[in-house]
Amino acid sequence: MTEPPHPTKPHHVVIVGAGFGGLEAAFRLAGAPVRITVVDRRNHHLFQPLLYQVATASLATSEIAWPIRYLLRDRPEVTTLFATVTGVDAAGKRVLLDDGEALSYDTLVLATGARHAYFGHDEWEPFAPGLKTLEDATTLRRRILVAFERAERENDPRRRAALLTFVIVGAGPTGVELAGTIAELAQDTLPPDFRNIDTHKTRVVLIEAGSRVLAGFADDLSTYAQRSLMSIGVEVMLGQAVTACTADEVVYGDNRLDTTTIIWAAGVRASPAAEWLAAAADRAGRLQVLPDLTVSGHPDIFAIGDTVVIAGPDGKPVPGIAPAAKQEGQYVAAAIKARLRGVTPAPFRYRHAGSLAQIGKRKAVIDFGRVKLRGTLAWWIWGIAHIYFLIGLRNRLSVAISWLWIHARDQRAARLITQGSSKVSK
Amino acid sequence: MTEPPHPTKPHHVVIVGAGFGGLEAAFRLAGAPVRITVVDRRNHHLFQPLLYQVATASLATSEIAWPIRYLLRDRPEVTTLFATVTGVDAAGKRVLLDDGEALSYDTLVLATGARHAYFGHDEWEPFAPGLKTLEDATTLRRRILVAFERAERENDPRRRAALLTFVIVGAGPTGVELAGTIAELAQDTLPPDFRNIDTHKTRVVLIEAGSRVLAGFADDLSTYAQRSLMSIGVEVMLGQAVTACTADEVVYGDNRLDTTTIIWAAGVRASPAAEWLAAAADRAGRLQVLPDLTVSGHPDIFAIGDTVVIAGPDGKPVPGIAPAAKQEGQYVAAAIKARLRGVTPAPFRYRHAGSLAQIGKRKAVIDFGRVKLRGTLAWWIWGIAHIYFLIGLRNRLSVAISWLWIHARDQRAARLITQGSSKVSK
Repeated sequence: MTEPPHPTKPHHVVIVGAGFGGLEAAFRLAGAPVRITVVDRRNHHLFQPLLYQVATASLATSEIAWPIRYLLRDRPEVTTLFATVTGVDAAGKRVLLDDGEALSYDTLVLATGARHAYFGHDEWEPFAPGLKTLEDATTLRRRILVAFERAERENDPRRRAALLTFVIVGAGPTGVELAGTIAELAQDTLPPDFRNIDTHKTRVVLIEAGSRVLAGFADDLSTYAQRSLMSIGVEVMLGQAVTACTADEVVYGDNRLDTTTIIWAAGVRASPAAEWLAAAADRAGRLQVLPDLTVSGHPDIFAIGDTVVIAGPDGKPVPGIAPAAKQEGQYVAAAIKARLRGVTPAPFRYRHAGSLAQIGKRKAVIDFGRVKLRGTLAWWIWGIAHIYFLIGLRNRLSVAISWLWIHARDQRAARLITQGSSKVSK
Repeated sequence: MTEPPHPTKPHHVVIVGAGFGGLEAAFRLAGAPVRITVVDRRNHHLFQPLLYQVATASLATSEIAWPIRYLLRDRPEVTTLFATVTGVDAAGKRVLLDDGEALSYDTLVLATGARHAYFGHDEWEPFAPGLKTLEDATTLRRRILVAFERAERENDPRRRAALLTFVIVGAGPTGVELAGTIAELAQDTLPPDFRNIDTHKTRVVLIEAGSRVLAGFADDLSTYAQRSLMSIGVEVMLGQAVTACTADEVVYGDNRLDTTTIIWAAGVRASPAAEWLAAAADRAGRLQVLPDLTVSGHPDIFAIGDTVVIAGPDGKPVPGIAPAAKQEGQYVAAAIKARLRGVTPAPFRYRHAGSLAQIGKRKAVIDFGRVKLRGTLAWWIWGIAHIYFLIGLRNRLSVAISWLWIHARDQRAARLITQGSSKVSK
């Protein structure tokens, strides 16, 4: 696409990535004397904090995703481009696209996120898929549901036990939420549907290399979360590093476990933004940015969200969570506006609002710093907060109904095995 | 899976296929002295009459599909098997499964449905996909949405026009409903979202070999449907047989048309049930059944739904629609019960309740035989009837909300391009 001339708003901001950070930057640039192009290789913005609920059949894909161009439809100065960025020509101030075209920018915002990572063991990926996209979620959903289906048809008790063993690697919020929800699925939703297996006998094993679950939370909340998980049957293995994943087993520490379903929630690797710019990055590929979130030597390039690493006020890295990305997007929009007025923006300052995680069975933990909550009240706040942060009344209503049904009837509407018949998926 | 012994209910009914016919047979066998195994290669029952709404981003997959074993959970005598049938050993009274196992039956019900067919031109399939499964629907949805995205990025006017030309082959209910909904999408939903293209200029072309649209309806309703389609911009080409489909054009009669999106709604081919039994079939592969819906020479094998052909009371074949399959499923259940009591069942008699089709823009046609309706009232009846026939309050509520949003706000929640980034899908 050639760029349309826009003589009245000559300053062109290109935002790559329409996750929480990129989209927030676009929203907050409203009213600025700029024209904006948002580029994403997906056509939808994804509410990643609830992605595990798609993977566990609780929510439908369309309940947590919105077409990007729809979200920006009322902003005539914003153009949305469904394209994959392949690199940045920083000298020429151009973003390179997959179709060979290039997009000139005055200011570039890189908000390209992260993928899950296997610490140098990419060969594990086919056996231990991670969870970052809608396709990841429907793939995991298929694997989880197919494991129960195959167990129902399996005569060999050992093989059946392996099919009914679900291993989650990594006990951060995603790992904890997946473990809790799979346990709920096995304990509450599935039992009446099967004839040959007792899904109550499902093993859910959560393996964590560190010394506690939810390491980002206060100690007592970690302890509570671990106890809650164990009370619904999740086996929590702490201080155990995974050393091998195959189609039918996981090896961790001195142990091996027969399993056909391993889910990877252990680590992420940043997008190649740092490589595009040949800029300094940490071990996880995260671009090191200056206090104003620009890239050293590139004052016209901002980078935000999961693709960057920056220290928070406590000296620890700003966490890779939606509120942090949003704050960064908001900051970048304000910084661009300030610069256009000839003002140098003050450095970015992260304010940690709190951490939330659901633990299945109507329980959650919330760490607001001074205020710490756990149990059913925390679960209600968790649920209301997530519905509040969804976009639009329609999806709020839809998710609320889905959750109502799950909790009143133990029914999960999205128990669909797609992209594969029984034959293909075996 | 070996079959569990069931000494108190020795008669084993195996139902292959959990579409409308197979599921109805299972439901109606409640209380009979039989045990039942339902085999399907999908884990979900699909409400096919609304599948075009998934393909056009109006509904989510989970709104029109239910896990089969969930629907049968309260029936302890029913076992659901997620497996692909590969053949029938009629002499040994066994159904052969993909894993090499076999399932013995006393009575077999084949309800294996149909796929779309290309009249000997299977090479058209990659360019003109059809619509029978959830994957078909999400594939079509991706193709339709990606065409608009690519058009937005395209500079060549001729190529752009081809991207904005959608061809539907076949003007039965599915073809008419797809054409009307794609026109609605282009006219009402998408315009404010795009910057470089005017989606009002989208061409929707409906090509039909016969002399009218909706041939199964009364003449005046066909005329009305055609006029309604034309009023929303659909180009209706009657009496035109398609002679070629490629990646960028369709050839019909003496015409050729540049298009990148062709959708096949022109014909179906029955499942291989007739081949399994080496039984007589018509040109579309549909098994010829006796008046009691058994297969000639196999009194213990019933066959129903889209995989069979049988004459209705008017001498014409019973149509391949959900109510017909359900009536046949109901009949088979009654016939099995009668036989177990030693009674010979009376022949199946099809009662045609009526035909319904939506035509986009809050219009529909309904042909009840004596009563014929069209326009907005028909659309309301169409909508209420479809919500009524959905299973369960949750999906009824969910679909009602989705439709409410479409008609109040012109917004379609499921505008998701999945299974392919911008790069892959080009």
